Amino acid sequence: MKRVFMEIAYDGTAYCGFQIQNNAVTVEGVINEKLSQMTGEDIRIIGASRTDSGVHAKGNAAVFDTDSRIPGEKFAPALNTRLPEDIRIIYSKETEPDFHPRHCDCVKTYEYKIYNSPVPDPLLRLYSHFEYIPLDVEAMREGTAYLVGEHDFKSFCSIDTSAKTTVRTIYSIEVSREDNLITIRIKGNGFLYNMVRIIAGTLMLCGKGRLAPEKIREILASKDREKAGPTAPAKGLTLVKIDY
Amino acid sequence: MKRVFMEIAYDGTAYCGFQIQNNAVTVEGVINEKLSQMTGEDIRIIGASRTDSGVHAKGNAAVFDTDSRIPGEKFAPALNTRLPEDIRIIYSKETEPDFHPRHCDCVKTYEYKIYNSPVPDPLLRLYSHFEYIPLDVEAMREGTAYLVGEHDFKSFCSIDTSAKTTVRTIYSIEVSREDNLITIRIKGNGFLYNMVRIIAGTLMLCGKGRLAPEKIREILASKDREKAGPTAPAKGLTLVKIDY
Repeated sequence: MKRVFMEIAYDGTAYCGFQIQNNAVTVEGVINEKLSQMTGEDIRIIGASRTDSGVHAKGNAAVFDTDSRIPGEKFAPALNTRLPEDIRIIYSKETEPDFHPRHCDCVKTYEYKIYNSPVPDPLLRLYSHFEYIPLDVEAMREGTAYLVGEHDFKSFCSIDTSAKTTVRTIYSIEVSREDNLITIRIKGNGFLYNMVRIIAGTLMLCGKGRLAPEKIREILASKDREKAGPTAPAKGLTLVKIDY
Repeated sequence: MKRVFMEIAYDGTAYCGFQIQNNAVTVEGVINEKLSQMTGEDIRIIGASRTDSGVHAKGNAAVFDTDSRIPGEKFAPALNTRLPEDIRIIYSKETEPDFHPRHCDCVKTYEYKIYNSPVPDPLLRLYSHFEYIPLDVEAMREGTAYLVGEHDFKSFCSIDTSAKTTVRTIYSIEVSREDNLITIRIKGNGFLYNMVRIIAGTLMLCGKGRLAPEKIREILASKDREKAGPTAPAKGLTLVKIDY
């Protein structure tokens, strides 16, 4: 028996999220199926981040246990010949038998992309949120200052969370603009349910001039989901990488 | 009667090219249909660039004639509510009645994108050509030097061309690399059938070390399509803009 680690990229458009579900096509479900076909075992991967329906990944991660004699690093190329084009294993390797991709220290990097222009770009429609109201990137940046650091992010978490604590640390948030495409890049030691999308929705309110950036301090203090901005749509979000 | 000019963006993935065809879904066919529904007339647009099946556009152009009382600039928003998400009219305006988008001086800018990495990126799979062999961008740049300027591009043109002359002028070709994504950006006063894709295929041979960049001078002189590299796949190509 050995444990194999994989880095996984996918276009979330066609999937009902990462986590396996009955009667819905998910990234985890597809990978389990292909790995089980390859090995003849009943393989069940353990994912690092259970991204929501429509959310993309360039660097999600997962582990699985197998008695197969296939070397750890050979799973990536072998799986890629079997997987649909919208899921790719970047690499695979044997790892420690007790390595768990969720129960360990890591830094996660997410990007939220907003196409901010009077007319949507058809080539970016699946990988960005479209917003025609001009956004003030400087105001969005001011808003980020109140979010960086260790805080109780209860106001930035969907109400149906099962998390034991809502305290998290954000290491950095960068807001950049290149032509019409705004990218919010956020690094932290873990994120609550919908936290990045609620942060994106709240920063967009700052960008539209509908929320003064300094109000974010009060929103955090209130610990009230109703005070923060809306949850921004899933398709703008990509899990970029997880550093263990 | 007035003539209306439109700038058009589309994701070419789902279309059998720009130009109208019987029994195939094309960008021109879809726009004609929606414009005819809107106006009650039998509208037939005249496109600037009849891009191939699978080729994308951020800035193609077209004109059409109409007796409609809809102001020129209102066609863009009205059409966008009717068009599928993968076609968007960037703007529209009334233009001179004798303006023809193909029979006039213009500068066209194309980009050819190559994702150059051991494993494809699912998020770029529809908008770039995947190449796992490492490409030497410097060698590709050397190759471009022989192509810039006025030349007979007969060697870089698919054999079934109907062009009267195969002489064209390329104003510039830039090859840039950002992480794993290589972009060939090319500007010219017009391009022969498949010319940009054959240039991309030939520069990739230089990048792989299979063709010495200076050989491109001989390829041009030979006026023989067989001497140039293969036609690179359509999905890597985007018509970026047309400057009139």
